[in-house]
Amino acid sequence: MGGDQGPKATLEGVAMASKIYPDVKFKLFGDMTKSQPQLKKNGFANYEFIHTEECIKSDDEPVNALRKLKKSSMRLGINDVSSHDADGFVSAGNTGALMAISKFVLKTLNGISRPAIAGLMPTLKGQTVILDLGANVDCSNDNLVQFALMGDIFSQTVLGIQNPRIGLLNVGSELIKGNSIVKQTHSDLSKITKKINFCGFVEGNDINKGVVDVVVTDGFSGNIALKTAEGVAELIFTFLKNSYKSSIISKLGYLLSQPALNRFKTRIDPRKYNGAVLLGLNGIVVKSHGSTDAFGFCNAIGVAVSLIENSYINEIEKKLKLD
Amino acid sequence: MGGDQGPKATLEGVAMASKIYPDVKFKLFGDMTKSQPQLKKNGFANYEFIHTEECIKSDDEPVNALRKLKKSSMRLGINDVSSHDADGFVSAGNTGALMAISKFVLKTLNGISRPAIAGLMPTLKGQTVILDLGANVDCSNDNLVQFALMGDIFSQTVLGIQNPRIGLLNVGSELIKGNSIVKQTHSDLSKITKKINFCGFVEGNDINKGVVDVVVTDGFSGNIALKTAEGVAELIFTFLKNSYKSSIISKLGYLLSQPALNRFKTRIDPRKYNGAVLLGLNGIVVKSHGSTDAFGFCNAIGVAVSLIENSYINEIEKKLKLD
Repeated sequence: MGGDQGPKATLEGVAMASKIYPDVKFKLFGDMTKSQPQLKKNGFANYEFIHTEECIKSDDEPVNALRKLKKSSMRLGINDVSSHDADGFVSAGNTGALMAISKFVLKTLNGISRPAIAGLMPTLKGQTVILDLGANVDCSNDNLVQFALMGDIFSQTVLGIQNPRIGLLNVGSELIKGNSIVKQTHSDLSKITKKINFCGFVEGNDINKGVVDVVVTDGFSGNIALKTAEGVAELIFTFLKNSYKSSIISKLGYLLSQPALNRFKTRIDPRKYNGAVLLGLNGIVVKSHGSTDAFGFCNAIGVAVSLIENSYINEIEKKLKLD
Repeated sequence: MGGDQGPKATLEGVAMASKIYPDVKFKLFGDMTKSQPQLKKNGFANYEFIHTEECIKSDDEPVNALRKLKKSSMRLGINDVSSHDADGFVSAGNTGALMAISKFVLKTLNGISRPAIAGLMPTLKGQTVILDLGANVDCSNDNLVQFALMGDIFSQTVLGIQNPRIGLLNVGSELIKGNSIVKQTHSDLSKITKKINFCGFVEGNDINKGVVDVVVTDGFSGNIALKTAEGVAELIFTFLKNSYKSSIISKLGYLLSQPALNRFKTRIDPRKYNGAVLLGLNGIVVKSHGSTDAFGFCNAIGVAVSLIENSYINEIEKKLKLD
C-alpha cells in the first residue's frame, strides 16, 4: 500500500519480478478492494494475498505506527518475517515506521547495536554501497565499525565483490582530518584488517569515482550525501534539457542524440539503484523509494532476493563471530 | 604562487580581472623570477609586485606554515590586509594554512567565535550560498547561528539578494528530525526572525533546487555535500561523453548538439562558482580552488571585489550588533 503510487506501482513491480524470479512466491499485504483492479490487470497468479484495511500513511509518526497500527499491511508483513513465514519483506512505505517496527519485531543481530540503512550509488566503475543513509543521526565509533562489517558482507552478497574495499567518509584523506569519532573509527578499523579490507578515509567526491566498494558514514552525512547527489543529478538534467530547447539546430541535434541520451539515462537511472536495505536485523527488510514506479519496485525486490539467496544473515553472523 | 598551475593561472587571472575591474589596484606577492615570464606575457601594468622566495606548499602543515613561514607570499598578503594596505586577499594556495594564518593575523570579528568557509553552488533558480564548507568539523548551535548571520549578509552583498531565505541543512524537514545541535539551532534561529528570514530545515536535494538562498551547516556535512556534488557532476559528464562515443549517428548528433552542450557546460561551469570566502574575520580573504585556471581565479577575485565594494565587514558588524 506504500509509495506515492500505492498498489499500482508495487503490484506491477511484483508482476515484473515474478517473471524474473519464477521460483519466488509472493505474499502480498494490503487492502484487497484497492488492489483488485491492479491484480486483475497484471494477471499473475503466483501469490497469496493477506487482506487488511489498516495502513500506515507517509506522515504517520513512527512511534504511533508501531504502537497503534498493529494490523497495518507493513506490520503484518514484518511479523511474517519474524515467524519465518516470509524470507524477506519489501515496502515502499513510511521509512521511519518501517525502521521502528522492524527493530521492535525482528530485533538486531547479536553484536549489532543499531541497524543501518544501506543503499547503492552508481560510480565510474560500477556501484558502491553507502551506509548509513539516515537511520542514525548520531553514531559512535562502535556503530561505524559495525556498519563497516555489515557493508562488507552486503557488497559480497548483493554485488558479488570479493574482498570489498571499505572507506570511511571524511572531509579529507589525511589522518589529522575530521572529528574525534571518525578518527577513532579509523584507528579501530585499522586494527581489524584481517576481517575487512579497510582503505582509510574517502571524501565526498570519491563516492562516485568508485575508489572503494563500501562507504561507511553516520546517518546524518550519509543522508546529506545521497540527497545532494539526487539534487545535483536533477539540476544537471534540467539544464541539459533546457539547453537543447533553445534553437532549431539543437533540436535536430537532440533527435540524432536520442540513442546516446537514452543510453546515458539508462546508465544513471535511479530506479536501477532502488532498494535500500535495513541492515543488522534478524531478517531481510528492503525499503523502496516512495516515488519510484513498477520498474524501481521490481529492482527493490531483486535486492531482497539477492540477500536471501546469498544467505546475508548467516554470512554477517559468521563475520560478527570471527576474531 | 598557489594552486596547481602556480603563477600561470593566478597572474593570467589577475590580467583578466584588471580588464573587468579597471579601478582595482593589484598587489602581487610571490617569487619574481618565477612570475616574470607570465607578467611579460600578460602585459598589464596596474600592479605592484612584492617579491619573496618563501612559499607555502600544498602539503605543508597549517601550524608549521603559520609558525615558520613568516615571509611566505601568503603571510605577506594577509599581513597587508591586517595593516589596511590591502582591502582583501585572494589565494589559490593551501586552505588549512590560509585559514590558520588569517585567523591568527586578522582575528575574528566581535561576536563571531569561529570563521567559516562560504561558497556558491548553482541552483535551478540561480545560486545559493553554503557554509561552512570545512573549516569547522564540529559546530555548536551558537556557531551555526553566527554562520546564518554571516551567510545572510554574504548573500545580500555578493549576490544582491534582499532578505535572503536561510535554511538549516538536515536529514528531514520535520522538527523531530536531526541531531540535538540542529534542533537547538532551529529553535535559536526561530527566535531571531527579525534579524534573518529563517525558513527552517532543508534537505540535501533542496540545495540545488534553490529552495533557499543560504544553506547553513557544519563543516563536516557542508564539505561532504560540496564534494559529493562535484563527484556526481563529474560522473554524469563522463557517462554523457561516453554515450556520445558509441555510434556514428551519436557522433553526428554530438556535432549538431555542440551549441546546446556548450550552453549547458557554461551554465554549470565550476569556474563560475569559484571563490570560497573565509567569513567572520577582520578582513576579506578569498580562497580559489587550487585546480582552477585563469578564468576561475579571475572569478575568485570578483568575489573579493564584491565583498569590498559592498562593505561586507561593516554590514556584518552592524548585523551582529543588532538586537
